[in-house]
Amino acid sequence: MKKIIVIGEILVEIMADQIGDGFLTPLALTGPFPSGAPAIFIDQVAKLGQPCGIVSSVGCDDFGRLNISRLQSDGVDVSAISEDLTRPTGTAFVRYRQDGSRDFIFNIEHSACGQVDMTQAAQTLFDSADHLHVMGSSLSSPTFIELNLRAAQLVKRRGGSVSFDPNLRKEMLKKDGMRQAMHQLLDQTDLFLPSGDELTLLTEASNEDDALAELFGKGISAVVHKKGSKGATFHDLQQSVTARAFSVDEIDPTGAGDCFGGAFATYWLRGTDPATALLRASASGALAVGKRGPMEGTSNAEEIDAFLRHHGEPA
Amino acid sequence: MKKIIVIGEILVEIMADQIGDGFLTPLALTGPFPSGAPAIFIDQVAKLGQPCGIVSSVGCDDFGRLNISRLQSDGVDVSAISEDLTRPTGTAFVRYRQDGSRDFIFNIEHSACGQVDMTQAAQTLFDSADHLHVMGSSLSSPTFIELNLRAAQLVKRRGGSVSFDPNLRKEMLKKDGMRQAMHQLLDQTDLFLPSGDELTLLTEASNEDDALAELFGKGISAVVHKKGSKGATFHDLQQSVTARAFSVDEIDPTGAGDCFGGAFATYWLRGTDPATALLRASASGALAVGKRGPMEGTSNAEEIDAFLRHHGEPA
Repeated sequence: MKKIIVIGEILVEIMADQIGDGFLTPLALTGPFPSGAPAIFIDQVAKLGQPCGIVSSVGCDDFGRLNISRLQSDGVDVSAISEDLTRPTGTAFVRYRQDGSRDFIFNIEHSACGQVDMTQAAQTLFDSADHLHVMGSSLSSPTFIELNLRAAQLVKRRGGSVSFDPNLRKEMLKKDGMRQAMHQLLDQTDLFLPSGDELTLLTEASNEDDALAELFGKGISAVVHKKGSKGATFHDLQQSVTARAFSVDEIDPTGAGDCFGGAFATYWLRGTDPATALLRASASGALAVGKRGPMEGTSNAEEIDAFLRHHGEPA
Repeated sequence: MKKIIVIGEILVEIMADQIGDGFLTPLALTGPFPSGAPAIFIDQVAKLGQPCGIVSSVGCDDFGRLNISRLQSDGVDVSAISEDLTRPTGTAFVRYRQDGSRDFIFNIEHSACGQVDMTQAAQTLFDSADHLHVMGSSLSSPTFIELNLRAAQLVKRRGGSVSFDPNLRKEMLKKDGMRQAMHQLLDQTDLFLPSGDELTLLTEASNEDDALAELFGKGISAVVHKKGSKGATFHDLQQSVTARAFSVDEIDPTGAGDCFGGAFATYWLRGTDPATALLRASASGALAVGKRGPMEGTSNAEEIDAFLRHHGEPA
């Protein structure tokens, strides 16, 4: 089986219990929950039984131990998670507002996971990898861009593949060198996983068809376009296949997109047909939405089977 | 009235609701509470109506706004609290263990308040100050040591005074240059506020009397020795006066020592007789122990009066 790796942040999330605005008074909170988009992604991959690992860093504290323990017990190779002796594990405080949007207070850039370096353990993990997943939100510094580009080159040189979820806030593209870095990564990408208008954001195109043509022209072999409640569509040069989104009670959508991506990349690497891979990825995302805590909703194959059966789909 | 300044960390505290060990699973928490030893100290000073200010830094986030708003409304000059554009406000997660000890996860050194610099606003505050309080726990970097030494020299040159609470963990003395820095600060100190065996820790002495003689020999004019449940003793060359500790239901002892110090320094600067100053400082500490949240228990003069009357002491 092909080994998937990812590079990026490991955090704990602290959630406000009550909906409202911000953190200006003492509130009832719950945490720490294991978190970080790349960590959630790779945990979902591991739960499906795929070999996988993450390059990151945590502090020498319970928040770091909590994450390592969870990832390890779910089957993630944690050998390239370094322990920072002076910086704490990253944190994200999250509060849902009345309208479903979220207030965040992050400690990432200056936390342990903001300082990931090319270690011997990371090099060893890169050398064992068949697939790199790039999380756009983790491209927060020149070091992270460089690490991802290096990993992409190593993996591709060995005949491996690269998936890329831009997971972009538009303002990130204004950062020096960010657009160029995104394009360099896109040039290495086999499987592209944009959400909504991210499909056109890194192209010259203003409509879907032109964007797809431009992306295929770059050598990308497959695009999965995530469209929220409208489902997701798989495109390659032969076909376009759409899978439904499942309607579920929304407990906590944080992490659902990362679960979708982890599940899809896993099934895609296994050669699963696109319609099935999409449906199982959608189920994984829907299962994540139904659990409180960003990494609490990752699912194994049996849980996805049961969910699909429950929703009248073949498991 | 004399203006008191302090330099050091501003944090929010996040408290676990249940007693136990560490932060390895999602817990019920409450926060953010305004915190940071120097911030609590200076808030207590302000509540007594003394002019005062703090040199510190917070992030551009609700945790910073919460602290600035609290300090400002209690009367602290916040003009020298800078806003860090990239680092978050410092945090402390605290959980009480069964035996009354505490588990902490700190983000201080790499947070906004770990990066305080000599700004124009800090210089202006130094120039307006009559008294500097040095918090030993804030001497976490060469920059902080340098800032405190510089402020001490400026304040003393203008005829002002310096108080020093070593607030030391012994392992801090092993840090390069820390013992020397403590001695340099002790050389500038007028009012020394050690707890327990801190009385001898920075001297050559092995008993109280020798330590006091050595400290007075350095030019220190008064020592307040804090002895927990045994109360506190004021020593100068003329007298030794002990005040009782008050027995109160312990809700949250965090910050009580900072409140004691803030109240004592204030009354001492006003020329209050040592017995009264000690008793009022003890009352302030006891009031702090009875409130949940490190800065929630600072008291104004009327609250201290009422507490003393309730405990059969003259207010």
